[in-house]
Amino acid sequence: MRLTRYSDYALRVLLYLAANPERLSTINEIATYHSISRNHLMKVVHQLGSLGYIDTLRGKGGGIRLAHKPSEIVVGDVIRNTEENMEIVECFTPGNSTCVILPGCHLKNALNEALESFLATLDLYTLADFL
Amino acid sequence: MRLTRYSDYALRVLLYLAANPERLSTINEIATYHSISRNHLMKVVHQLGSLGYIDTLRGKGGGIRLAHKPSEIVVGDVIRNTEENMEIVECFTPGNSTCVILPGCHLKNALNEALESFLATLDLYTLADFL
Repeated sequence: MRLTRYSDYALRVLLYLAANPERLSTINEIATYHSISRNHLMKVVHQLGSLGYIDTLRGKGGGIRLAHKPSEIVVGDVIRNTEENMEIVECFTPGNSTCVILPGCHLKNALNEALESFLATLDLYTLADFL
Repeated sequence: MRLTRYSDYALRVLLYLAANPERLSTINEIATYHSISRNHLMKVVHQLGSLGYIDTLRGKGGGIRLAHKPSEIVVGDVIRNTEENMEIVECFTPGNSTCVILPGCHLKNALNEALESFLATLDLYTLADFL
């Protein structure tokens, strides 16, 4: 059971920015710091921008920074937004399930409930808790 | 975020056996019913046997059946046993983390706590709840 690498990187970017509140950071710098692919990171940063988590200042001397205080960025929300899907087993994918017991299966509900517990726990934390 | 296909299949096997308590079932029959690979299923069944969830009767007329009542098989336990690992992000893998903030990172604790909430929710259910 695993979060996507995408969510992992998103959390690392946000934590990095939260730890450097006084200045703009660059994708290159974060890629080097974390030894992760700049290309991967560009996608992550782009989405974090679209989601309103970070501001991008273009041009010379530009860079990225958090668009909100760390205490306002809830970890559960970040995961909800960055996980491509929360399809914890095949039958959660609409129209793509081969499971013949699905119509009468209440296990799906239990797994959904467990997933909600997972996210609800992460809703108790903001980035500020990890600085 | 996803459970392994392995866990998915394990749950399907157990539910199948729970729904057919009066007789022995065969791997072929379950593979056909769920349209899943017999080879995959053999591994799953073998492990479920090793874990004590199912009994195997060999020979002509043999087959498999639950080794316990459905009400005694806790879903959270099954997942704990069948998930290859619970390494929800890279840094959970011992000795394999590239994350430079790991030594001071409390996010890992929060993710662990969230994972525990996930499993604790599934501990509230046994196979009997899904029949």
